[in-house]
Amino acid sequence: MSYELNNKLKDLIPYQPISGDYKIRLDANESYINLAEPFAHRIGNVVANLDFNRYPDPYAAKLCRAFAQRYHIDSELVTAGNGSDELISILASCFLEKGDTVLTMIPDFSMYAFYGNLYECKVETLVKSESLKIDPDAVLECLKNTGARMLLFSNPCNPTSIGLKREDVLKIVTGTESLVVVDEAYMDFWDQSVLDAVVEHDNLLVLKTCSKAAGAAAIRLGFAVANPTLTRALRAAKSPYNVNSLTQAVGEIILSEKNLLGRCVKEILHSRDELQQALDELAAKKADIVTVYPSCTNFIFLRMRDAKSVYEALLKRSVAVRWMGDYLRITAGNQEENRTLVKELGSILQ
Amino acid sequence: MSYELNNKLKDLIPYQPISGDYKIRLDANESYINLAEPFAHRIGNVVANLDFNRYPDPYAAKLCRAFAQRYHIDSELVTAGNGSDELISILASCFLEKGDTVLTMIPDFSMYAFYGNLYECKVETLVKSESLKIDPDAVLECLKNTGARMLLFSNPCNPTSIGLKREDVLKIVTGTESLVVVDEAYMDFWDQSVLDAVVEHDNLLVLKTCSKAAGAAAIRLGFAVANPTLTRALRAAKSPYNVNSLTQAVGEIILSEKNLLGRCVKEILHSRDELQQALDELAAKKADIVTVYPSCTNFIFLRMRDAKSVYEALLKRSVAVRWMGDYLRITAGNQEENRTLVKELGSILQ
Repeated sequence: MSYELNNKLKDLIPYQPISGDYKIRLDANESYINLAEPFAHRIGNVVANLDFNRYPDPYAAKLCRAFAQRYHIDSELVTAGNGSDELISILASCFLEKGDTVLTMIPDFSMYAFYGNLYECKVETLVKSESLKIDPDAVLECLKNTGARMLLFSNPCNPTSIGLKREDVLKIVTGTESLVVVDEAYMDFWDQSVLDAVVEHDNLLVLKTCSKAAGAAAIRLGFAVANPTLTRALRAAKSPYNVNSLTQAVGEIILSEKNLLGRCVKEILHSRDELQQALDELAAKKADIVTVYPSCTNFIFLRMRDAKSVYEALLKRSVAVRWMGDYLRITAGNQEENRTLVKELGSILQ
Repeated sequence: MSYELNNKLKDLIPYQPISGDYKIRLDANESYINLAEPFAHRIGNVVANLDFNRYPDPYAAKLCRAFAQRYHIDSELVTAGNGSDELISILASCFLEKGDTVLTMIPDFSMYAFYGNLYECKVETLVKSESLKIDPDAVLECLKNTGARMLLFSNPCNPTSIGLKREDVLKIVTGTESLVVVDEAYMDFWDQSVLDAVVEHDNLLVLKTCSKAAGAAAIRLGFAVANPTLTRALRAAKSPYNVNSLTQAVGEIILSEKNLLGRCVKEILHSRDELQQALDELAAKKADIVTVYPSCTNFIFLRMRDAKSVYEALLKRSVAVRWMGDYLRITAGNQEENRTLVKELGSILQ
């Protein structure tokens, strides 16, 4: 007898991160700072003393409190997940029913549409204008026209690096009854968060992550922040013991460090500014670089004449960046990595 | 404006593990042995030296190899997940389309039906006969009658502790074209695994976990084992970096320990046998204990005249077991814990 995969799995293309050994990795928007290094010893000690044979706290209460204190919100509004990914997956599979419409944008983080399709939602897509900025009125109109039950977008945007101001996000939230999910994975690099607004808006849910500014992509820790009704539903729908004891312990330590995040963000923004400036200067000389977008994040987004061949040429020189159609997305690395990138890019575009 | 939860979330009752401080915890089928303790120092060292700022290996290749070596299978057939829970959730949401039928049994692990319902599948339930044994012919007939696309059950069964022999499992697998998912979470305590049979059967998928015999519930690490086609689909459907670097590193260490698992299983089975015997003896004297089922696992399942009041009386004496309608499920603890349990139970049933 023979088992056949269903249609949605048969040709499913997985998210494909770059793998392979490259000297310089500027492809995944990781922080180049191992923020946990100064207290690695403490992390090792805490982990070594865990009760490995016992299940973790199902609601990760201490961890959620550490997150809540760091961001000055009530921990009762916080749900922890295995990266924002798990939380997005729950939002798409549980907060939408089959056939419900979810509105996403292009360009934006590809996993929103991936999960929407996988869970048999109708995925509507708003294509951003050439400026790549989000127009709140266009979004509201699109929500109305499509009857979308959920809007999912990143702010600042991955991959465009462009941010939407707080007042514009709130204009969308107050202008619709749909659930508005704002993925603030990169908001530690900017200052327009709507995190505190979840208290007043029952249709707003904000996602945060430890993978970017907090320099802890390895532990895959994300958070959803929303009002008590949404939080209760999210906690009920998640796997009972979703975040393991290792992650809870390490996440609590990282989030409790008072000054480190601020210092890292400052350092990364300095590096980002240097990279932005160097790329602007290069663009003035090289017509192959069509646009260098102003960044609100730890990466720079470039429109290129021939993004693919530049991407491949960089890989050959052991520099990994992310190629996305007509665009390249380049993470700000440390000073040396940025300089190498700019040098190699300059030489490729001779 | 006001956002309304959809019907499937509105009244969703989450899985409710016992929380609270109880001196003796025999409610979650955890191993009473912290298997990682002898090499806790090594775990601490490895974790302390992780690159926290970098994403984990998306396919957890080294970890899957360690698992494959331990169980003598090909690592290409292995997918790692955040506990079997994540894998069950993916199976229910992606290997079934909405409206597809999944066949589960009662009693069995409640999360199978939970996920099935959450993802809008039709959940059909085969009610086991009073012996609580599974009849392969009845299962095959039920698969045929319901048109189920997937069968999901645990073997040995949680909560009944009863096992289905390998030949009977394979009779089901070969008698249907539906996907047969066998959750072997407790199979380390028995010897009738069908793990190796995934090579010949394209509709068989076996789940394993580190939460039970391997004594590592804290790290929430589970595995799916299946033929390459199913494995490819599962890997494509999962979140890209689902298992974090901490879990990958610790899991690799635990799974690579050659003799520890066998020693722990032997010790736990000894304790289980003592508990079984003591409960058999108690049952001979106390009519309130209707049946003590013979166990293939690290826990004992009891049918009681009034399970709820006994459960509550035990809790008052700081002994937590699991209450399930007419039944109690009691994890084998260490010698002292078992003795206290039996003593308290005897005194409650005076």
